[in-house]
Amino acid sequence: MPQGALTLPAAYYVDAAFFKREMDGLFGRMWICAGRTEQIERPGQFFVRQVLGESIIITRGPSHRVNAFYNVCRHRGTKLCTDEAGAFAGSIQCPYHAWTYDLDGRLIGAPHMEEVPHFRKEDYPLHDVRSDVWDGHIFLNFANDPQPLSAHLADLPKKFRPWRMEELRLGRRIVYDVKANWKLIVLNFNECLHCPNLHPALNRLHHYLGADNVEPTACYCGGAMGFREGVETMSMDGKRRREYLPGLSESQRQQVAYYSIYPNLLLSLHPDYMMTHTLWPRAHDRTEIICEWHFHPEELARPAFQADDAVEFWDLTNREDWWIAEQSQAGINSRVYTPGPYSEREALLWSFDEIVRRESATDGPPRRREATKGQTTSSS
Amino acid sequence: MPQGALTLPAAYYVDAAFFKREMDGLFGRMWICAGRTEQIERPGQFFVRQVLGESIIITRGPSHRVNAFYNVCRHRGTKLCTDEAGAFAGSIQCPYHAWTYDLDGRLIGAPHMEEVPHFRKEDYPLHDVRSDVWDGHIFLNFANDPQPLSAHLADLPKKFRPWRMEELRLGRRIVYDVKANWKLIVLNFNECLHCPNLHPALNRLHHYLGADNVEPTACYCGGAMGFREGVETMSMDGKRRREYLPGLSESQRQQVAYYSIYPNLLLSLHPDYMMTHTLWPRAHDRTEIICEWHFHPEELARPAFQADDAVEFWDLTNREDWWIAEQSQAGINSRVYTPGPYSEREALLWSFDEIVRRESATDGPPRRREATKGQTTSSS
Amino acid sequence: MPQGALTLPAAYYVDAAFFKREMDGLFGRMWICAGRTEQIERPGQFFVRQVLGESIIITRGPSHRVNAFYNVCRHRGTKLCTDEAGAFAGSIQCPYHAWTYDLDGRLIGAPHMEEVPHFRKEDYPLHDVRSDVWDGHIFLNFANDPQPLSAHLADLPKKFRPWRMEELRLGRRIVYDVKANWKLIVLNFNECLHCPNLHPALNRLHHYLGADNVEPTACYCGGAMGFREGVETMSMDGKRRREYLPGLSESQRQQVAYYSIYPNLLLSLHPDYMMTHTLWPRAHDRTEIICEWHFHPEELARPAFQADDAVEFWDLTNREDWWIAEQSQAGINSRVYTPGPYSEREALLWSFDEIVRRESATDGPPRRREATKGQTTSSS
Repeated sequence: MPQGALTLPAAYYVDAAFFKREMDGLFGRMWICAGRTEQIERPGQFFVRQVLGESIIITRGPSHRVNAFYNVCRHRGTKLCTDEAGAFAGSIQCPYHAWTYDLDGRLIGAPHMEEVPHFRKEDYPLHDVRSDVWDGHIFLNFANDPQPLSAHLADLPKKFRPWRMEELRLGRRIVYDVKANWKLIVLNFNECLHCPNLHPALNRLHHYLGADNVEPTACYCGGAMGFREGVETMSMDGKRRREYLPGLSESQRQQVAYYSIYPNLLLSLHPDYMMTHTLWPRAHDRTEIICEWHFHPEELARPAFQADDAVEFWDLTNREDWWIAEQSQAGINSRVYTPGPYSEREALLWSFDEIVRRESATDGPPRRREATKGQTTSSS
Repeated sequence: MPQGALTLPAAYYVDAAFFKREMDGLFGRMWICAGRTEQIERPGQFFVRQVLGESIIITRGPSHRVNAFYNVCRHRGTKLCTDEAGAFAGSIQCPYHAWTYDLDGRLIGAPHMEEVPHFRKEDYPLHDVRSDVWDGHIFLNFANDPQPLSAHLADLPKKFRPWRMEELRLGRRIVYDVKANWKLIVLNFNECLHCPNLHPALNRLHHYLGADNVEPTACYCGGAMGFREGVETMSMDGKRRREYLPGLSESQRQQVAYYSIYPNLLLSLHPDYMMTHTLWPRAHDRTEIICEWHFHPEELARPAFQADDAVEFWDLTNREDWWIAEQSQAGINSRVYTPGPYSEREALLWSFDEIVRRESATDGPPRRREATKGQTTSSS
Repeated sequence: MPQGALTLPAAYYVDAAFFKREMDGLFGRMWICAGRTEQIERPGQFFVRQVLGESIIITRGPSHRVNAFYNVCRHRGTKLCTDEAGAFAGSIQCPYHAWTYDLDGRLIGAPHMEEVPHFRKEDYPLHDVRSDVWDGHIFLNFANDPQPLSAHLADLPKKFRPWRMEELRLGRRIVYDVKANWKLIVLNFNECLHCPNLHPALNRLHHYLGADNVEPTACYCGGAMGFREGVETMSMDGKRRREYLPGLSESQRQQVAYYSIYPNLLLSLHPDYMMTHTLWPRAHDRTEIICEWHFHPEELARPAFQADDAVEFWDLTNREDWWIAEQSQAGINSRVYTPGPYSEREALLWSFDEIVRRESATDGPPRRREATKGQTTSSS
C-alpha cells in the first residue's frame, strides 16, 4: 500500500450510473459464486439466481452436467420458470405457448411453428451462461471468453483441499437485504479493526489484531485468525458442539480461514463448519446477502445435531456488520465526504479498492449476448 | 403477415422513454374508451379517470351533454374533485378559494377577482377534453383535431347493433393492477393459442383454434368463437343462467364475439352478457385494468338474478392472463431477449404491432392543450 | 404587485431538477430555522436534522457554544450518530473504528493512525455548518460567506421582543409528511382567503379578511389578525386556558401574529402560546413539517396545565391545509396547468414568488464545502 492511501471516491458507492458500469466490469466478467452442487444433485433439479438484472436458471442436464440458462423463452420472451427452486420433469416448458427445451437447452417442441417456412428448432436454444464447479461451489461467468475458473482461483483449491468442501451439506440459510453498496460488505469483511467497537461477542473469541493474512491477489484476499485461549470455534460461548471436520491438521483446528473470493463469495472455514456469504448487488445502495452454514453430513445425521450456536453467533455478528455498512453508505452519500486515510492495518481494503478501480474503468459497450446457436459449455 | 414476422423489439415494452412517446402517439390521439353513459345518467353525476398522467372528470351537463374536463382549477391549479365518482350539486366548486364552474365548464364564480382589472370570467373555463358516445360507451379524445368517433369505429356500430349495448347495465366491476405493459394485455387477448396451456377452464368451453377472425383494421381486430358441444355461455360449467340478450340471431347465440378496439377497449359479447375490459397504462411495466360485467336490466331485476358464474369464470381466466403477461414483461426485460418468430396463427398480433410501430413513430412535441377559450365540443 | 400578476409556472412545483437548483439557491444560502436552544440546554446534548440531503448534528460545546456538524466521520465516511436526539458523553465517537471528536469538532482519537506517516489529527475535524441563535431559535447557514443572521432578520427581533420567545418551552410536537412542494405550504400560510371554504373552525375565530399585513421584505412577510368578538385565542372554542404571555401590550393580547420567515419558519405568536412550523423539503412533491406548541414555563408547571385546546385546534387546521396543498400539487402537475391570476388579496404570495424566482435563478455549481481545517464559527 502506498503512503497516503485513501478510501475510494464517493461515486463508487453512491452513483447509480457508476454502479451499472461496475456491474458490467466486475460481475459481467469475473466468476461469480452462484450456489452449491448439492442444490441440484439430480438431473432436472434447479435453482434460480438474480444477477446483473437477469434471472438465471441453474440446473443439471441428463449427463449430469451443470447448466445455466437465461430464464427467457425464445418465442415471445416469457419468463420460463417462476419458482425459486424445484425440479423440472425432464424438460423446461414455457407456460405461455408450450415451447419446450431439453435440460441442455435445446428447443424440442414449438407448437404450430412447423407451418412457418424456414423455421428450424436448432436456431432457438436457450441462451446459456458459462458455468463451472470448484469443490461443491457453482460459479457462473457472463464474459464472452473468460479465463477458466481454475486459472482464476489459482492456488485456492489446493489451499482449501483439507476442508473437503464438496462433502459438506447445508444446515441453515438466512437471506439479508442490506441498504449498502456491496463493496462496503467486502471491505467490512476484510478487516477486524472494527471488532472491538462493534462486535463484543466476536471480540471475546478472536483478538482483533490476530489475523495472519496472505499476500492479496487479483482473485482473493484473506487469512487465518486464531482463537483466544479456551475457544474452540465461533459460537456464542466459544464451545464446539461438533467433531472437527475430517482431514484438518492440528493448526487448522485452531483457527478460522476468512477469505473474500472476488467479487461475491465470502468464505469462512471453521474447524467444524463452513460459512458462506454470497453477495447479490441489487442497486448502488442495496445488496442481498445469502448466508449459509454447511456441516459435515455425519454431524447432520446425528440425532443431537444442532447448528444454533454457530447460526446465532454469526447472525448477531452479521447484523452488526450490515448495520455499520448501512451507516457508511449513508455517510458517504454526504456532499462533504472525501476519501479518508487508510491505516497500515487496512492494506487489504486498499488492495480490493485497486481491483475495483481497475476493472470498473474498462470501457466497451454493455455486453449483450449474441443469440446462441451452439450448445452450453459448462462442466459438472 | 409477411414471412419471417417477428415480435416487437424490447424497447416497446421496457423503455420508460419510449412509453411516454407511445402514450402521446396512441392514447394522445386515438379515441379512448372511458366508461359507460349509465355512470352519469343525470346531469351533475360524474366519474373520474386517470389517463396520460391526467385526472379527467367525466360528467353530464344540464342539456344532458356528456362533458369531460381536466380536473384542474384555473385559479391556482388545485385539483377540483378528489372523489372517484359522485354527483355535483349543479356546479363544480374548487375546495381552495371557491372558484366555481357550471356543468358545461364555464367559470361562474371567482371571489375577489372582480377587483382585478381586465379579469374576465369567460377567459377561464375549465380545460375540456373531446368526448363522444357509441352505444352506451363513452369515448375521449385528446387530439387537437381528431377524426369523428364514428369514422374511427367504421363498421363496428352496425356489426354490434344486435347486442343493444346501450341498454345493458353494470352487474359487477373488478379492477386489476397488472405489472405488465398494456400491449402485452392486448396481444394476449388477440390469440387463443395459449388457452390449452394456460386456461384449463376456458379450454373446456372453446376450442382454441375455433376463432373466426375478421380482417383486422386500424381500429380493431377480433372475431367470433363458437362453443364446444353442450356449452351455452362462458361460465364455470358452461351453463347459461340468463335469457339470451334480445335481438340476437340464432348464430349470435352460439358464440362469443371478442374484439380489441384500440387502444384500450377489449369487448367480449356473450349470448347473455357483455364483458368489457378497459386498459389504463400507468407505466411501461404497469397497467390498471377495469373489468366489468354488464347484463340486461330485465335480468338484473329478477329476484333470482346472479352473475357469479360469469364473474368467477372470467376472474379466474383474467388472473391467468395477467400472470402470464407479467412473466412476459419480466422475460422481455432481459438483455438476451430478441424479437421471436410469430406463427401463422399469430397474425392478429402482428397487425397490432404494426399499428403500434406506426403510431408511436410519429414525431412532434407532446401535445399541450391551448388554454380553452371556447366551449366544449362533446355530444351526448 | 404589478397588474396581471400570475402564479409561478408548473416547473417550480413539479420538476425534480428545478427542485435541486432551488434547494441550492434558497436552503443552501439562506438562514434555516433548525430548532430551539432548549433542545440542547447542556453541553453534549444534541439533535439531528435532515436538510439538503444531509444529516446535520446540532449540539452544544463545552463553552456552551451551539455547534452544527455534518454527521460524517472523516475516516471512512460513516454516519456518526443514528439517534434523532440525545446526549454525547463528552465526545462524539464513530461506531465503526472509534475515531473520536470533541464537542467542538476536533479529532481527538484515531486508533492506529499514529503509524501513518504525515497523518495529523488537526487535518481531520468534523465538517461544520455555520449556526446562530435568535431568541431561542437556532438557525443554520450552508453558504460559504453568509450575511450575519441579525442582518438577515432585520427588524424582526425588535418586533417580537415582547413575546420573550427564548423563555418559552415545548409543550407538544407533531410531525407531518405532506405530499406537496414546500412553497405551497408557505403560500397557504400567507393568505386567509381560503379560510371560509376550508377552515370552518378557524373561521369562527378570525375574520378571513382581518389580517393587518406589514410590507413584505426579502426575509419575511406576515401580519397580525384580530379575533372575532368573544374570542381570546386560537382553540376549538376560542377560550383561553392559560395566562397571557408576560410582557404583551393590550393590543398584542387581542391578536395573533402570523409570519413566514423564509425559507422554512412559520411563526404564529398567540396571546398565550407560540406555535412554530419548520418546513423540511424532501422532494419537489414532499415536505416534512415539524409543528410545535411552546408555552410559558410557569404555565407548563401548573398541575392543571393543558395544551389540548390549542393542539387539537391547530392539528385540525393543519390537516385541512396539508390536504389542500396536496390537491394543488396534484393539479399543478397537469399538462394544462398554466399560471393563474392573483387577486389583490394575494399580494403576499406574489412577493414570496418573486423571492423564489430571484434566488433559484442564481447560477453557480452546487456548493461543496471545502475540507474544514479551522474551527467552527458559530455562537451561542
